[in-house]
Amino acid sequence: MIKVGIVGATGYGGRELLRLLCAHPQVTVTAAASTSVSGDALADELPAFAKLIDLEFETFDATSLAARCDVVFVGVPGKASMAPVAALHEAGVCVIDIGPDFRLQDLALFQKYYGVEHIAPELVQKAVYGFPAWYRDALRQAEIIAVPGCYPVSMLTPLRPLTDAPVSGVPIVIDSISGISGAGKSLSQAFHFPEMNENLKAYKIGVHQHIPEVEQELLNRFTIQFTPHVGPLTRGILTTITLRPETLFDPAPYYACYADEPFIRVLGAGKTPDINQVRASNFCDFGWVCDERTGNIVMVSAIDNLMGGTAGMAVQCMNIRFGLEENTGLKWAGMAP
Amino acid sequence: MIKVGIVGATGYGGRELLRLLCAHPQVTVTAAASTSVSGDALADELPAFAKLIDLEFETFDATSLAARCDVVFVGVPGKASMAPVAALHEAGVCVIDIGPDFRLQDLALFQKYYGVEHIAPELVQKAVYGFPAWYRDALRQAEIIAVPGCYPVSMLTPLRPLTDAPVSGVPIVIDSISGISGAGKSLSQAFHFPEMNENLKAYKIGVHQHIPEVEQELLNRFTIQFTPHVGPLTRGILTTITLRPETLFDPAPYYACYADEPFIRVLGAGKTPDINQVRASNFCDFGWVCDERTGNIVMVSAIDNLMGGTAGMAVQCMNIRFGLEENTGLKWAGMAP
Amino acid sequence: MIKVGIVGATGYGGRELLRLLCAHPQVTVTAAASTSVSGDALADELPAFAKLIDLEFETFDATSLAARCDVVFVGVPGKASMAPVAALHEAGVCVIDIGPDFRLQDLALFQKYYGVEHIAPELVQKAVYGFPAWYRDALRQAEIIAVPGCYPVSMLTPLRPLTDAPVSGVPIVIDSISGISGAGKSLSQAFHFPEMNENLKAYKIGVHQHIPEVEQELLNRFTIQFTPHVGPLTRGILTTITLRPETLFDPAPYYACYADEPFIRVLGAGKTPDINQVRASNFCDFGWVCDERTGNIVMVSAIDNLMGGTAGMAVQCMNIRFGLEENTGLKWAGMAP
Amino acid sequence: MIKVGIVGATGYGGRELLRLLCAHPQVTVTAAASTSVSGDALADELPAFAKLIDLEFETFDATSLAARCDVVFVGVPGKASMAPVAALHEAGVCVIDIGPDFRLQDLALFQKYYGVEHIAPELVQKAVYGFPAWYRDALRQAEIIAVPGCYPVSMLTPLRPLTDAPVSGVPIVIDSISGISGAGKSLSQAFHFPEMNENLKAYKIGVHQHIPEVEQELLNRFTIQFTPHVGPLTRGILTTITLRPETLFDPAPYYACYADEPFIRVLGAGKTPDINQVRASNFCDFGWVCDERTGNIVMVSAIDNLMGGTAGMAVQCMNIRFGLEENTGLKWAGMAP
Repeated sequence: MIKVGIVGATGYGGRELLRLLCAHPQVTVTAAASTSVSGDALADELPAFAKLIDLEFETFDATSLAARCDVVFVGVPGKASMAPVAALHEAGVCVIDIGPDFRLQDLALFQKYYGVEHIAPELVQKAVYGFPAWYRDALRQAEIIAVPGCYPVSMLTPLRPLTDAPVSGVPIVIDSISGISGAGKSLSQAFHFPEMNENLKAYKIGVHQHIPEVEQELLNRFTIQFTPHVGPLTRGILTTITLRPETLFDPAPYYACYADEPFIRVLGAGKTPDINQVRASNFCDFGWVCDERTGNIVMVSAIDNLMGGTAGMAVQCMNIRFGLEENTGLKWAGMAP
Repeated sequence: MIKVGIVGATGYGGRELLRLLCAHPQVTVTAAASTSVSGDALADELPAFAKLIDLEFETFDATSLAARCDVVFVGVPGKASMAPVAALHEAGVCVIDIGPDFRLQDLALFQKYYGVEHIAPELVQKAVYGFPAWYRDALRQAEIIAVPGCYPVSMLTPLRPLTDAPVSGVPIVIDSISGISGAGKSLSQAFHFPEMNENLKAYKIGVHQHIPEVEQELLNRFTIQFTPHVGPLTRGILTTITLRPETLFDPAPYYACYADEPFIRVLGAGKTPDINQVRASNFCDFGWVCDERTGNIVMVSAIDNLMGGTAGMAVQCMNIRFGLEENTGLKWAGMAP
Repeated sequence: MIKVGIVGATGYGGRELLRLLCAHPQVTVTAAASTSVSGDALADELPAFAKLIDLEFETFDATSLAARCDVVFVGVPGKASMAPVAALHEAGVCVIDIGPDFRLQDLALFQKYYGVEHIAPELVQKAVYGFPAWYRDALRQAEIIAVPGCYPVSMLTPLRPLTDAPVSGVPIVIDSISGISGAGKSLSQAFHFPEMNENLKAYKIGVHQHIPEVEQELLNRFTIQFTPHVGPLTRGILTTITLRPETLFDPAPYYACYADEPFIRVLGAGKTPDINQVRASNFCDFGWVCDERTGNIVMVSAIDNLMGGTAGMAVQCMNIRFGLEENTGLKWAGMAP
Repeated sequence: MIKVGIVGATGYGGRELLRLLCAHPQVTVTAAASTSVSGDALADELPAFAKLIDLEFETFDATSLAARCDVVFVGVPGKASMAPVAALHEAGVCVIDIGPDFRLQDLALFQKYYGVEHIAPELVQKAVYGFPAWYRDALRQAEIIAVPGCYPVSMLTPLRPLTDAPVSGVPIVIDSISGISGAGKSLSQAFHFPEMNENLKAYKIGVHQHIPEVEQELLNRFTIQFTPHVGPLTRGILTTITLRPETLFDPAPYYACYADEPFIRVLGAGKTPDINQVRASNFCDFGWVCDERTGNIVMVSAIDNLMGGTAGMAVQCMNIRFGLEENTGLKWAGMAP
């Protein structure tokens, strides 16, 4: 059994991790650190875990966690994971971070989009981007794993195999719609139930912090015009990408890259996914339509934002890192209804 | 008091019309025809109207309706309004059609997108497109008014004033998200509650029947790449338009066109709307972001699909046609929460 | 035109009042006081009202409001309306309060359930409970009107006519389900969208502050066992009442009391309402089932909690108070879908 | 590995079973029978299962299924499982039925509430009611297991331990609110998304077919007044029970019965559950409030209706029947958000 610790288990991403790890057949959850509720029984704070996990929340202590765990997951808000990740790494334990702090290799872009200077620049280079399809070998011996963002997974899955394709130089238009869980647990008037139910809106148009992450992982081959939207649902991201190929669109790279991927499903031409087929699962499904009238390709991808790009992908990375079968604890079809 | 009749009051658009007309201070609802429930008390079929309207549903009879009404609204599904509109026009009464049958001037496109031949081609030319901002004068004496579609209103409001603007020739990318009421009252597995709740999907990519309507009203100046989506809400359309201007974007045409429009609100640069501010109202609100990094303009518009582009706009057209103050019975702010 | 002012227009109840008053054909909204946003344009704070109301929010000043208004609506949270209502009354203007501060005649119960001492006990006696069916005459000359609570309207409408009926002495079991707008605009973790979507819960079991209000208006003839619930919707209250009659149940009092009520619809035996038929309307609909197997009567009532028991009933009271037709500005059928 | 077959995997209950069985570490899904889609690849019909299950749907054939399976789950609508269960039993395989056909021991009540005569009365007696807390020993060797209904689980969990308690003879009032998935996959106007979103209603008041099932399992000690409601959510049942004890309420039986139950959590006095803590899990959580003012006890229980009382409980029964650890494949905390 792999002994795992978790930092920040009361946030949405951390809680989802706990849910997966608690049911994972080769894992024992050894420690849960959450300074704000330190000393409380986990099941008092999170009653869904009563009769499943018998732990108390503890104050974060890197040395203590490193001594008791084979791997520690960090699920704290953006900009707040730099410090604990660095401390845990220093203490000698493998770290899997579901936040954004170790994803951007260009530290100037990190500072621009996150508004703070990075405190552990040397570790950014050490961190492996947790996208198994492209970094599987590196993940096997990674000391720090930076799990991709949720929007990025929904964009990179269909776009990364096209980095060598003949695509027009105009920015690729990407409109995503996300469930509200992506905005986290912190309160805001915008996400008060009566203001978000039956509502839709766009936000952070052209300035979302996931833009440089995506462009980096597209090898800076494309510029993206990204408009995120939120709608009245809890989980799920649907991403629609409009691409202008310069020659006939060739989907061969998809099958070459993804035939054996356990959690990527290429639906093919004329088929596009919905959230139902991926909810509560680790899958990213995508398909496309070739619009002969306009000459464009319209691609649509779907993920569960708390699984793909967050907790599910983090567990997949752990499975790879520790030599388990890659889909252990993740053999879940989309939950629908 | 204007005597109005309504054909098809049990569908979603017709029912919303009835709601507005019932509260309209200068209207008497004189007749409601719905062959499937003919003879039933309206309030038995639609209990929300008990103590408000005391009518029986009647079988459709153009001559009888024309004799008793100053204007008849037709709210039946696409392809089914050609016949009653023609009969009512023949019988000499003003007709306001909220369906698509009299919107497309190019009959070949009608046949291509709706799959049937038009049975009243000469009336198509007579029909006035019910978009007050551009057809107000023609509406004052229209005999047949074809109320625009809901998606078209959300696209045309921000795009029509730009038909002379210097915009790149690449297709304009338009992604809309609609509430499910737009799909009407007919049952389908796709819109069974448990399959649509918490769900999102794209549909009819590049082939939606509103595409030629929009391109016609953009004077065939632009090609649009339109991807409609549905999400887990009842009312509302949010439309995101990505435009590539060839020179600096100039919003002056908006202010020139819309300063005095009672139901169009130009939010300006850096501001984009949500559904809350237009729900249950006749407004179309829009704003935009100039993305200097990419050189694009991203515009977002919001309407309530059962009001703007359907029942509300139909009543606005009636007000114009009968010389009433244009916002009579429509002075409603967005309902939120 | 009646000149109205509104205090607290940014909360949910106040905003709904503003929506109704703005469209009311015999009202001019003259002033909107909201100290927290004083000086801001109303349409900046509430963009849904742009092109409809051209006012600035002002600091609350009873004398100034009284000088400019025929009536002032107060829509601030519970316990916060005592002071402004008293000041406005002192300044000589008619006041309609949608909060709870002037509903409970027994000041000891007020203190017990609201946790504070009343600051204007003499005005409590002066206030008229704004339930037109039973207080219509008193409302015609009321100086202070205390609009009933939303849960109370849903319970009192079916129960008040039974105060003389032979009903068992066991407490009447009342389970209500409310939309989240009833909890107001203030943020709380419990009503953060992702925590309330797809969720249901009971709260304040047996201790809700509306219990003494309902028992008072049932003339202390019944004890009620009231369990409120919240579910994932914005508007609406569905109330289910289980009653144990001692003799054959006789619905005659309903027809005697409500035949001419403009906003109460008695559905009769075997018919029960849903929220759809009352949403965005001022109606309270109710019906019942006689269960011969158990000997009980199960009644179900439905209202829109922001209309019935809040803004709609407040406008109805104003119409009565100022001699207008009682349903002016309120002739709305339930909005569905 | 246990070889399982499933009949009716395209309905909501059957699909959820498939989701659980597919991830169950000691199960191989060997066959899926669904006559309407016989011959289709399972993953074409249910794209969520692509890359997880590689089977074709087959026509129902009891002998063939019995030859290839250790146990067959039947997940077809009420009244339609009698025949396949009988055929499978005859063919010699263990059967677990998630429908209602083998739950009611009193065949006259079956005929009264389901409207048909039972075709296999002798098997009704043989069937074991799949409520582990009370029938665990019988389940170990059951040939036919009748999994309880979803509403019954939410009522019986808090009530069954009280069958010897001193409770008043008046009917126990039970109001439940269910998600729409409980109504199944069949289309109806009532559950079309726009008619159920933002809606609430009561239905089958006093005549729901689960009433005799619950009274049977309460050993006919109590009469229940059951009013089911539906609300705008997909999964979950919240049940509120108002009980009138004749002496001081004693919760000791709960702790005696449930201390070691893996999926029942007694929250205690003053604590009541919400759906969040049980969603997508097999738990039934409940708590209560003693209302000193009225002398009543108000209990609230929560389950996920597709897990507790359906697929989750069915898997739990299988685990017991085949000697596995009882929570194998079911160690899931409630999914929230």
